[in-house]
Amino acid sequence: MISLINIPSTKNDLLTAAVLARWNSLTKPPGSLGRLESLVTQLALASGTAQPTVSRKTMVVFCADHGVTAEGVSKYPREVTGQMLHNFLAGGAAITVLCRQFGITPMIVDTGVDAEPLSGAINRRLGRGTSNFCNQPAMTESQLEQAIQNGIALADEVREQADIAAVGEMGIGNTTSASALLCAYTGMRPEDAVGPGTGIDAAGVSLKAAVIQRALTFHKRVVEEADPAKILATFGGFEIATMTGFLLGAAANRLPVVVDGFISSSAALAARAMSANVMDYLFFSHVSAETAHKRMLGALNAHAILDLEMRLGEGSGAAMVMPVFDAAVALYSQMATFPEAGVSES
Amino acid sequence: MISLINIPSTKNDLLTAAVLARWNSLTKPPGSLGRLESLVTQLALASGTAQPTVSRKTMVVFCADHGVTAEGVSKYPREVTGQMLHNFLAGGAAITVLCRQFGITPMIVDTGVDAEPLSGAINRRLGRGTSNFCNQPAMTESQLEQAIQNGIALADEVREQADIAAVGEMGIGNTTSASALLCAYTGMRPEDAVGPGTGIDAAGVSLKAAVIQRALTFHKRVVEEADPAKILATFGGFEIATMTGFLLGAAANRLPVVVDGFISSSAALAARAMSANVMDYLFFSHVSAETAHKRMLGALNAHAILDLEMRLGEGSGAAMVMPVFDAAVALYSQMATFPEAGVSES
Repeated sequence: MISLINIPSTKNDLLTAAVLARWNSLTKPPGSLGRLESLVTQLALASGTAQPTVSRKTMVVFCADHGVTAEGVSKYPREVTGQMLHNFLAGGAAITVLCRQFGITPMIVDTGVDAEPLSGAINRRLGRGTSNFCNQPAMTESQLEQAIQNGIALADEVREQADIAAVGEMGIGNTTSASALLCAYTGMRPEDAVGPGTGIDAAGVSLKAAVIQRALTFHKRVVEEADPAKILATFGGFEIATMTGFLLGAAANRLPVVVDGFISSSAALAARAMSANVMDYLFFSHVSAETAHKRMLGALNAHAILDLEMRLGEGSGAAMVMPVFDAAVALYSQMATFPEAGVSES
Repeated sequence: MISLINIPSTKNDLLTAAVLARWNSLTKPPGSLGRLESLVTQLALASGTAQPTVSRKTMVVFCADHGVTAEGVSKYPREVTGQMLHNFLAGGAAITVLCRQFGITPMIVDTGVDAEPLSGAINRRLGRGTSNFCNQPAMTESQLEQAIQNGIALADEVREQADIAAVGEMGIGNTTSASALLCAYTGMRPEDAVGPGTGIDAAGVSLKAAVIQRALTFHKRVVEEADPAKILATFGGFEIATMTGFLLGAAANRLPVVVDGFISSSAALAARAMSANVMDYLFFSHVSAETAHKRMLGALNAHAILDLEMRLGEGSGAAMVMPVFDAAVALYSQMATFPEAGVSES
């Protein structure tokens, strides 16, 4: 269905050894900077250089509405997606505050919000929200193709302006879509794949699991067939599908990407199903308080960097990790070596 | 022994309610910023205002040598403490790179390094390293008194220049002192309280536990007597004791302090034993990879903010948490409210 993009593996023993040699020459016990050291190694391998930089940062926030909101799965009304898109552009949302704070360039992409288009948002609209996946695929095959192509083209653009990218999202109802994708890609049971999202109660969480179970049964053949693109078209959202294309396109361009929380990780799940090497280019920013995110990260074999008990989305967790990258790269490039500092080695 | 400082409790239901009301008015699901929300609440209570700020940051790094290095407990030679002090001042050490990166003012305090005094370091020297606590108290009662007073006076100074302080340390041998304090204050067994420090092997870790067991037996009466100050004088270091005074003095001044890793947390253990309310003013930055730090945090009932598998000390973990505070305060003060943004509430 999708003509897949070629993503090279980042494996490079010489480069790995060069980065490790630099770390071990610096005035600190070997390995004592922990994750900061391994992050720079992965950055170096992703970008193919022993002197990686993260000065220029772009945050891409993908927004869309979801047909499955008709099932009453969210606490907030559907209009909130469009209202929040406006809030992003006006600078009052969490993600815009964080982008200002950490010197990140925000790009707000409307991939299919059920509202009039807003100037200031990048228009990649594929409709006014997906269809309700309980009784039909969320999107058509050609909408999925277009979403993936849009994402790849956005990654080509971002590559020109950024050393590192981050992805986030906004879309009332999209934890339900992400949970359904988690079930369809991994075989997880709906009751293990759901959580309170923006804050529904226990009865709401049970309803969400039941809605997903109904959808999985309705689309039983798609799940069994296990075609990654067809699963994404069936249960995904326009923002998740466009983000999936972005992750694939970024990796093909050797652009490292920081993935936000539960919904963004479901795009990583889709991208990995399409091209496993994409994982070498992805950093998982945080463990969301959304209950199933830990399990989703487990399914991805991913080790998140932060756990701040956040569950907001928008890219807020990914933004929080940017100073960690800044620090890691500054230490790696600016610390003195043992001979430079006249410090005895053990 | 020590004339104790008066530290007020931060409990204030009206202020707590005011901060929570502000968080819940902002355009996000209630509670969805997780730790960022609770950090601002604690900051507000510590500083006694509903508009806390963290713009001006000071990192105090306490340095000293340790008599217990005579027992062969460290991988690095004792001279490294003085060499690293020089490296701090020259700007090539991890902590100085991180302070530059995050706009933190460093203060390097020599509390008793076994080297000639360096200009640029704040001189609060109490000797050229402590005595070996295996066969005598690490310091005299009057040295401890002086260390505590020095720490309190430093906190008075820092209060004038900073909205938030952080503490770190440097001292070859000081994980052994911190582990001994953990045992003496909590009754933990030495084998549960030790770790590899800068990187000793399993045999070295066993030796360290045996050395501490020998010291605990030698000072059995001090441990049983359970006088917090006497325990600190017996097993502490000049940097740990001065830091303990700093934590007490900062709290008395309502100055929030970010505590670094294993050794800094042992100063928190000492400070809490002297005045329990000090805990209201302390933030525990990270879980160190030093094995026993999780247990020490457990003994402190403290929930660390980051886990980056770091084990360097110097204040490096505390520095990493400063952008988290910046972000939390920026979100709290700059995000739009629901009415301001025209977003529907649930």
